[in-house]
Amino acid sequence: MSRPIVTLTTDFGTADAYVGTMKGVLLGLCPQAGLIDITHEVRPQAVRQAAYLLSTATPFFPPGTVHLAVVDPGVGSARRAVAVQTGRATFVAPDNGVLTLALAHDPPRLAVTLTNPDYHLPQVSATFHGRDVFAPAAAHLACGTDPRDLGEQIPVSRLVRLPSLEPRRRPDGTWQGEVLHIDRFGNLVTNVQGTMPNTQCTVEIAGQCITNLSQTFADVASGDLLAYVGSSGYLEIAVREGSAAAHLGVDVGAPIEVRAW
Amino acid sequence: MSRPIVTLTTDFGTADAYVGTMKGVLLGLCPQAGLIDITHEVRPQAVRQAAYLLSTATPFFPPGTVHLAVVDPGVGSARRAVAVQTGRATFVAPDNGVLTLALAHDPPRLAVTLTNPDYHLPQVSATFHGRDVFAPAAAHLACGTDPRDLGEQIPVSRLVRLPSLEPRRRPDGTWQGEVLHIDRFGNLVTNVQGTMPNTQCTVEIAGQCITNLSQTFADVASGDLLAYVGSSGYLEIAVREGSAAAHLGVDVGAPIEVRAW
Amino acid sequence: MSRPIVTLTTDFGTADAYVGTMKGVLLGLCPQAGLIDITHEVRPQAVRQAAYLLSTATPFFPPGTVHLAVVDPGVGSARRAVAVQTGRATFVAPDNGVLTLALAHDPPRLAVTLTNPDYHLPQVSATFHGRDVFAPAAAHLACGTDPRDLGEQIPVSRLVRLPSLEPRRRPDGTWQGEVLHIDRFGNLVTNVQGTMPNTQCTVEIAGQCITNLSQTFADVASGDLLAYVGSSGYLEIAVREGSAAAHLGVDVGAPIEVRAW
Repeated sequence: MSRPIVTLTTDFGTADAYVGTMKGVLLGLCPQAGLIDITHEVRPQAVRQAAYLLSTATPFFPPGTVHLAVVDPGVGSARRAVAVQTGRATFVAPDNGVLTLALAHDPPRLAVTLTNPDYHLPQVSATFHGRDVFAPAAAHLACGTDPRDLGEQIPVSRLVRLPSLEPRRRPDGTWQGEVLHIDRFGNLVTNVQGTMPNTQCTVEIAGQCITNLSQTFADVASGDLLAYVGSSGYLEIAVREGSAAAHLGVDVGAPIEVRAW
Repeated sequence: MSRPIVTLTTDFGTADAYVGTMKGVLLGLCPQAGLIDITHEVRPQAVRQAAYLLSTATPFFPPGTVHLAVVDPGVGSARRAVAVQTGRATFVAPDNGVLTLALAHDPPRLAVTLTNPDYHLPQVSATFHGRDVFAPAAAHLACGTDPRDLGEQIPVSRLVRLPSLEPRRRPDGTWQGEVLHIDRFGNLVTNVQGTMPNTQCTVEIAGQCITNLSQTFADVASGDLLAYVGSSGYLEIAVREGSAAAHLGVDVGAPIEVRAW
Repeated sequence: MSRPIVTLTTDFGTADAYVGTMKGVLLGLCPQAGLIDITHEVRPQAVRQAAYLLSTATPFFPPGTVHLAVVDPGVGSARRAVAVQTGRATFVAPDNGVLTLALAHDPPRLAVTLTNPDYHLPQVSATFHGRDVFAPAAAHLACGTDPRDLGEQIPVSRLVRLPSLEPRRRPDGTWQGEVLHIDRFGNLVTNVQGTMPNTQCTVEIAGQCITNLSQTFADVASGDLLAYVGSSGYLEIAVREGSAAAHLGVDVGAPIEVRAW
């Protein structure tokens, strides 16, 4: 068997020792695992943003990868902790919808709740299930444990999904979406799938109107707004050699409308 | 032998190439080592904060791990560089107290100064001992070198400790501590050990008074202050769905008083 | 063969999933590779800063390391993507001068353009060649592919270099350089090589004059300016226990003059 891979996606940041501590747990239980950070800078408790970021990375990992996602506003409450197996990968996360977009293209086949205490750390804290519940589960799965050993099986249809992550279609055919994420360059990533609009469309955001989609930044002049299908397949809004977020004064959650014809 | 692990804790940040350079040295001398970041965002030269962060992570790593901690205000001065062996791990650090809390629960058995130039890089700079002295020592130790080869043995009792990291007890029984660290969520981590207060206690900080300890955030209303024993065993102060640091206007070093009865 | 190493240097930051996605591609194509981050916090599109940071780390990695550097303002334009083999390492990068300083001390022996689509991902996006072109090339090279398989060979003399990264010498013997990078501590790293000035020199920056070079920070009083040859061999300007960048009010690109006698 080749070296197992575990990816980590959290809102823990990197200024604390939380992520390093989880990695200690992972390597203690599965020493041969290779650990890869997706990002730890999800905004605190921003499940929707985490869902987006995770879904852009997972298709590029080799089959068999275990993806651990801990953005968990409900820690300490009754929300379920789950492991979900798909045709390509295994996911370990709180059952709060953070897997919605990743599972849209890689459908779940098996889901279990992480209720078996034999696969938790001996002491489970009230506030750090990433260390005490999720990391041990991911490590055991990476080293070959059958997901069904970790707890009770639940129907995959009962996994929490966030349908609102999909854009809505109005009667007049307009798609209404939102900004899911702002990347380092100030580009706005929306939840409108790139397969939907074609080059003949009108994008409205923050009172500005963009006609037609561009292929590359070079299609517009420096400082101009453009809309294009980003590298992850979502519609993005950018300013060439600038920040669309600053230019438009918008943040995550801002509405966007797309009309194609 | 399983793959050796070396953890890294520094105040170097990640915007420079310092950490990457240390990892190049580590892999050059111990190619099979797995390298795990605890954090590199210790505030510049904040030995006390580093002592706290390191101590929360080390108990969760497998036996035999080498922990490299470089927060080193005294680089270029006469401060010693040391390697310290405990029953579970080996530590490599400047001898400035940064190991105080980690060694409190995992007592030192053997300490050496890193004076043998055969285990330094051929050229030792005046300002970057992380690369030239500490990383080579950690790599050699991870790959099996006996600590005694690295330099002269010193009594473990002579290692620098920071007793002030422990809270003081006043004659009236009140514990006086301080804020050691503020995490990404604005939670205040204090140096008061969670085993000390019980649920019947009063916590005073920044003129505010918190009675009783909570178990989880859900115990209080949104926006309310709470005190609880954090996942690392230290007393923490938080605001539910908010930042205690912003709410109270306090920073690292702020005093805290705890009365239990 | 020992485990291959691939280093990553980008301006992608760590708040997006870009770097994690590249690592998925790398491990999919070369599962045994060890992946080491140099930094991902190069300022957006700052090729000169990236050239500096990369060059400080690469000499410390073991022979055979593959260095992947993606700071790529020209993505989507006609700029070439290249792999460059030296006596010690292999570099994969856009051909925009980002390798200038790394290759100055480790001269190129072979250069190829990454034009063979068999070594790209099946779908190449317009905006994320780090994932679709550069990461696959680095992975194949790390796992033993001959660079000549990746595309057409070009003369190493035709690689883009940034001669302006070297300081200029005026007729009166003064060296005119610039600030290439500001590190986490506010120290200014200049492009003046430390072998050039000797201890008898005058450094002028932002209207301030520093006479003589220091060996360590301890040579000056707290709050004082000093100039010294940094751990990477470049002239640096610092304030003891302070930030030279804040003290002098300068940013990357600020001019500096050095007179030695």
